[in-house]
Amino acid sequence: MKQINVGLLGIGTVGGGTFNVLMRNQQEIAGRAGHPIVITRVADRNLELARQVTAGQVTLTDDAFSVVNDPDIDVVVELIGGYGIAKELVLTAIRNGKHVVTANKALIALHGNEIFAAAREQGVIVAFEAAVAGGIPIIKALREGLAANRIEWIAGIINGTTNFILTEMREKGLAFADVLGEAQRLGYAEADPTFDVEGIDAAHKLMILAAIGFGMPMKFDQAYTEGITRLESKDIRYAEELGYRVKLLGITKRCEAGVELRVHPTLIPEKRLVANVNGAMNAVLVKGDAVGPTLYYGAGAGAEPTASAVIADLVDVARMMTTEVAARVPYLGFQSGQIVDLAVLSISEISSAYYLRLRVSDKPGVLAEVTRILGDRAISIDAMMQKEPAEGEDQADIVILTHTTVEKNMDMAIAAIEALSAIEGKVTRIRMEELGR
Amino acid sequence: MKQINVGLLGIGTVGGGTFNVLMRNQQEIAGRAGHPIVITRVADRNLELARQVTAGQVTLTDDAFSVVNDPDIDVVVELIGGYGIAKELVLTAIRNGKHVVTANKALIALHGNEIFAAAREQGVIVAFEAAVAGGIPIIKALREGLAANRIEWIAGIINGTTNFILTEMREKGLAFADVLGEAQRLGYAEADPTFDVEGIDAAHKLMILAAIGFGMPMKFDQAYTEGITRLESKDIRYAEELGYRVKLLGITKRCEAGVELRVHPTLIPEKRLVANVNGAMNAVLVKGDAVGPTLYYGAGAGAEPTASAVIADLVDVARMMTTEVAARVPYLGFQSGQIVDLAVLSISEISSAYYLRLRVSDKPGVLAEVTRILGDRAISIDAMMQKEPAEGEDQADIVILTHTTVEKNMDMAIAAIEALSAIEGKVTRIRMEELGR
Repeated sequence: MKQINVGLLGIGTVGGGTFNVLMRNQQEIAGRAGHPIVITRVADRNLELARQVTAGQVTLTDDAFSVVNDPDIDVVVELIGGYGIAKELVLTAIRNGKHVVTANKALIALHGNEIFAAAREQGVIVAFEAAVAGGIPIIKALREGLAANRIEWIAGIINGTTNFILTEMREKGLAFADVLGEAQRLGYAEADPTFDVEGIDAAHKLMILAAIGFGMPMKFDQAYTEGITRLESKDIRYAEELGYRVKLLGITKRCEAGVELRVHPTLIPEKRLVANVNGAMNAVLVKGDAVGPTLYYGAGAGAEPTASAVIADLVDVARMMTTEVAARVPYLGFQSGQIVDLAVLSISEISSAYYLRLRVSDKPGVLAEVTRILGDRAISIDAMMQKEPAEGEDQADIVILTHTTVEKNMDMAIAAIEALSAIEGKVTRIRMEELGR
Repeated sequence: MKQINVGLLGIGTVGGGTFNVLMRNQQEIAGRAGHPIVITRVADRNLELARQVTAGQVTLTDDAFSVVNDPDIDVVVELIGGYGIAKELVLTAIRNGKHVVTANKALIALHGNEIFAAAREQGVIVAFEAAVAGGIPIIKALREGLAANRIEWIAGIINGTTNFILTEMREKGLAFADVLGEAQRLGYAEADPTFDVEGIDAAHKLMILAAIGFGMPMKFDQAYTEGITRLESKDIRYAEELGYRVKLLGITKRCEAGVELRVHPTLIPEKRLVANVNGAMNAVLVKGDAVGPTLYYGAGAGAEPTASAVIADLVDVARMMTTEVAARVPYLGFQSGQIVDLAVLSISEISSAYYLRLRVSDKPGVLAEVTRILGDRAISIDAMMQKEPAEGEDQADIVILTHTTVEKNMDMAIAAIEALSAIEGKVTRIRMEELGR
């Protein structure tokens, strides 16, 4: 059994987890892989940390390039993150004929096309299970487990930070800003939470899921991204009264005109399993034409859950590195000649049902006007709820759930509603998904 | 791209689904597999049915052995079921150097050791994703996706018929026998429902999951199997009042003394996702030491969901059939030398919490005696509920939820409780699982 020599770039949270799980379960892992998988070199700027984690069992360096250039290294595990130095290291490793395992969703979503092209040329594996939904083996499920299916849509809770915040907002009735502070204290949110709360992190992962699901190149700049920062806890409450939960979903659908690719807060019927995924957990719902809806749930982040995915990739690499390329699962699940450059629909072209909240001063007359505006645009109303004005307020909230329409149609309806004199301020609009058959 | 020639044995529900999905998605599937996968021969006793399904595009026969002996066939798909002729056909196919894909859980659970040994000798693949939980890619998740983990336990709703019956019993307050009749009319239950309602089908699947999860040989005769036929709807109702749902679970755990391997009705906290898997759907919860709990949900039966799994296996075979054996995923996920003959614990040795229902005629004195009996055996009480006697009845139900104890300890406590003069009839006992961290 040839030993697989792994060079680890970055020994922070996930790197430390990877090192520890590989040590703890080395017998089990070798028993599965058919080869001992051993981290023989670690690069990190923080040598002191690296020393603590590895306890002197590994050669350390602060020069990551010396690892990717080391002829004794079979596989490079990139856990640095970002797309500056990480990209350069990954491409250098590939050019040196090394296989690469990465947890870097930003790198794959933005530079995957270039990276896969380089890897194809060199005949090396680039594996990235850990880039999406942490420990959940969703890449494998989608790329291999559902290979018989034409994938129709994918919808996922793929950012734990925002799911934690939304869960707290719902359970405690707190405002976004208050929960964010708590999440930061607990370590669930970063000091600069922009990537998480604005939906960018989720969009990176969604892009990867779409590319694999539909066999299309990465087109991250065309993803629509809307975060949870403007979400009010009263909308979460109203949604709940109507039988819905609000989740930040990444949604991608194959339509006739192209592919929808969007991240935004979404109302989901509470009876769906995915609506009941709480706290920092992740879940991905995949609809295949043969299998129907399937769901994959687990920890989407954290040292050992992410390490679980990194090591699963290492086991795959250990098994496959000596085979001919044709025997390997292609990077995006489809053979390279089968990747189709599908168009990404702009957000105004997507179809959705909607939750609308209006603040009105003069209910009876306004309601007739609002329903006329919607009716004129062939937008049918599924449910409506009027709330009493709050103590000491004149305006009342009206909540409307609509059936499906095209977003640009809804944009025009909302503009017309906002132009009504009895409507106070902006209309709050949250998209809704059934996520059934 | 070499075409993969498939011989299909049995063109009933799943066989027809496999044929149809392969036809409909042939371009997509070839794009993933790198090879066209084509059913070139079909064997079925019902040639008329086979003719209707295949519409004259395939060579038909009623002699399955002529297919497994056909030198032009690369892969045999066995969808006959049972372990008589199916076993003989599979072993003949293997001896002829053909790869085998099967959905036959009974065959794998009972004869897997022999089949894998024969396949190993011939260097052929035997794939069986469709044998467990239909379209959910749980074999792949467990065998590859979670390869980094020491699997601690697996708990699954892996029989759709019983989950449909339990869902109806709960939602409509009906008795088992009434719902069974309805399920039979709807086609969710067979005319002879024994395999499903007595938990045998679930135990077949559980055995396969345990073998893969823990790397142990099949020992189906040592599984504990208890079905849902004696379950009363009032226990489902009482459980719900206490915050629990009753599900038929297959549970396997790795303990110091061996492996628990058991199928029985189980109380689960309603807040768990798996407690909210309703109707005929399946879900498998897997706890790995690194990844934590993960859950896989989808359709566990039906023509196209099961076909989805069969074809995923065919895609794997198409990719891997030309590689050396070492590059393939081993049958049970572990290299053959790493399979450990773990002991299966008898049901009296397992540990569980319990739901107990007692019918008592004289509450105050009895309760003291019951709690003394439990206390004497160090069984602590987690919750207790007394119900009013029903109209016109003297006896009342008392429900007790206990903390964890060893089953044989509970057996003795129950015997002592049943010996009390104020206790009417047998104590109803349902095991409970937290299924948390």
